Amino acid sequence: MSRRPALAVVGATGAVGTVVLDVLAERPDLWGEVRLVASPRSAGRRLLVRGQPVEVLALGPEVFDGVDLALFDVPGPVSAQWAPVAAAAGAVVVDKSGAFRMDPDVPLVVPEVNAAAARHRPRGILASPNCTTLAMVVALGALHAAFGLESLVVASYQAASGAGRAGVETLHDQLQKVAGARELGSEPGDVRRVVGTDLGPFPAPLALNVVPWAGSLRADGWSSEEQKVRDETRKILALPALPVAATCVRVPVVTTHSLAIHAGFGAPVFAADARAVLAEAPGIAVVDDPAAGAFPTPVDAVGTDPTWVGRIRQSLDDPCSLDFFACADNLRKGAALNAIQIAELVLAERS
Amino acid sequence: MSRRPALAVVGATGAVGTVVLDVLAERPDLWGEVRLVASPRSAGRRLLVRGQPVEVLALGPEVFDGVDLALFDVPGPVSAQWAPVAAAAGAVVVDKSGAFRMDPDVPLVVPEVNAAAARHRPRGILASPNCTTLAMVVALGALHAAFGLESLVVASYQAASGAGRAGVETLHDQLQKVAGARELGSEPGDVRRVVGTDLGPFPAPLALNVVPWAGSLRADGWSSEEQKVRDETRKILALPALPVAATCVRVPVVTTHSLAIHAGFGAPVFAADARAVLAEAPGIAVVDDPAAGAFPTPVDAVGTDPTWVGRIRQSLDDPCSLDFFACADNLRKGAALNAIQIAELVLAERS
Repeated sequence: MSRRPALAVVGATGAVGTVVLDVLAERPDLWGEVRLVASPRSAGRRLLVRGQPVEVLALGPEVFDGVDLALFDVPGPVSAQWAPVAAAAGAVVVDKSGAFRMDPDVPLVVPEVNAAAARHRPRGILASPNCTTLAMVVALGALHAAFGLESLVVASYQAASGAGRAGVETLHDQLQKVAGARELGSEPGDVRRVVGTDLGPFPAPLALNVVPWAGSLRADGWSSEEQKVRDETRKILALPALPVAATCVRVPVVTTHSLAIHAGFGAPVFAADARAVLAEAPGIAVVDDPAAGAFPTPVDAVGTDPTWVGRIRQSLDDPCSLDFFACADNLRKGAALNAIQIAELVLAERS
Repeated sequence: MSRRPALAVVGATGAVGTVVLDVLAERPDLWGEVRLVASPRSAGRRLLVRGQPVEVLALGPEVFDGVDLALFDVPGPVSAQWAPVAAAAGAVVVDKSGAFRMDPDVPLVVPEVNAAAARHRPRGILASPNCTTLAMVVALGALHAAFGLESLVVASYQAASGAGRAGVETLHDQLQKVAGARELGSEPGDVRRVVGTDLGPFPAPLALNVVPWAGSLRADGWSSEEQKVRDETRKILALPALPVAATCVRVPVVTTHSLAIHAGFGAPVFAADARAVLAEAPGIAVVDDPAAGAFPTPVDAVGTDPTWVGRIRQSLDDPCSLDFFACADNLRKGAALNAIQIAELVLAERS
């Protein structure tokens, strides 16, 4: 490639798009032009890219002319319509939405886990997983490679920003209403009364509460988020029959998803061996010394790149299982960072 | 019994003791004298019992004279010392602490699940379980009776009041500090800086965070809370070899513990059948219509008596397993209410 590759960021003004620009500024500078694309409503705004103001263009077929890589951080229907347009124009598309993740002709890529899968992309599209899957799958990939994963039971602690900017605004609004009301939280509905009926993107108050729901309703009472955690984990790990049970719960955290994970393997796994495998694995920070108060929490993991893993224990009643806790920033590794890592993978093929 | 039985409430001025008096006022009025007992520091205070002021007595051997039932809501070491004194004075002791729960001569009682166990009490002491165990075990007992429980994986969402009044005060203090700071929660450590170093009874900030730790450190990285959930569930269900894996996590909720539960049974269980069993079971409120936004949450369950159960699903990849979510008020069913129900069981033997 004679010129430096051109990157398009589609959805540049959204919650994830903003983080894409932050992360790009921190990564090795591999890119020539960085073109910013958004809905016509946001076109004309200027955002800083590597310190320089760049004008946002309205999404249309012409914005992909000469683009090598296009990162899509837009809703699924927008990706479904425009990612093929970008691919037809010659760009490799890295799509963050759910539109293509389960398409058998679209690899679902986590560079630390299945980088090789990115090489075969018949549609010219690569998908990046759901943010909840991404909060655990780097750790699961390392453990699977070492010990052979056979089953998975997970419960999530998902941040408000997983529901976009409206989720964060709603949480802050509710916190301002409940703060100082020191008697709240002991009578049925008292928090609901103070929070009011504007629940934003959540189906129940999030301040002083946890909400066992994320996404839309699927068959048999499953949420779309729970279904994604199962289906995407299976695809990324190339374990299409892996038994996965997930319960997804929203918690009053701004950013960084956490999971409590019970993972079954084909043979006994000692916690010390798991800890050693994870400590050597790329993209993992092991924080696991409860006696010293060291375990992963969202307020420490937020704004960082790795998946934080701690509370690593061999199950008391099953030597072939591990219990552990993982946190990852849902806007960085859970979205922007993983997509950029995939784009960097594609560039590395060409060099 | 010619006179109405006398009840002593030991620890009457504590977080749970206060709720004991609230719950007593709502239950059938079975008691004659209700004697209030606390540490010498709190002696002389007057609290309302069934609308009448009653003076708090200092804990000493004489306070148990003529007492039929003594409810202990005090720290384990205080129970360990004084429960046998009360029993020797002729009272049946119902102890809420961890001092006697695993004593083979002390039944661990949840009236909806194992009422018969309360009849054999060689030490004159009955124990009430840990609040986290109590948030799920009524539901598990009903499901076990119907379908035969064979394994359990749980993750908890535990409220601040599980750490006592100091936990609630700490959460409210932290909420006041973070409320209005709408940029918080996106940089590593930003919440820690605002919250400061006074973390109260928690090992990390609780506002805008979740903390994967409750209790003290046990062998192999397990927390005492996780060990209790396992050991107590096994004892209550009379399943001493039940495989149980638990990860216990504190969340910024004032009162009401929640759990995400994956329960394995000996044969396939349909969600509709589980829902029907739970709907008929005493002490359970089934709230399970996600399409209508109906699932259990702490702010709705707090201040109520039942265990709220929802999100009931047959596991996608294992027809013999159910996934569900449960909430119960950790100060009521998790503490005061269950102890009073045990005391009422003992009275019912005599009538």
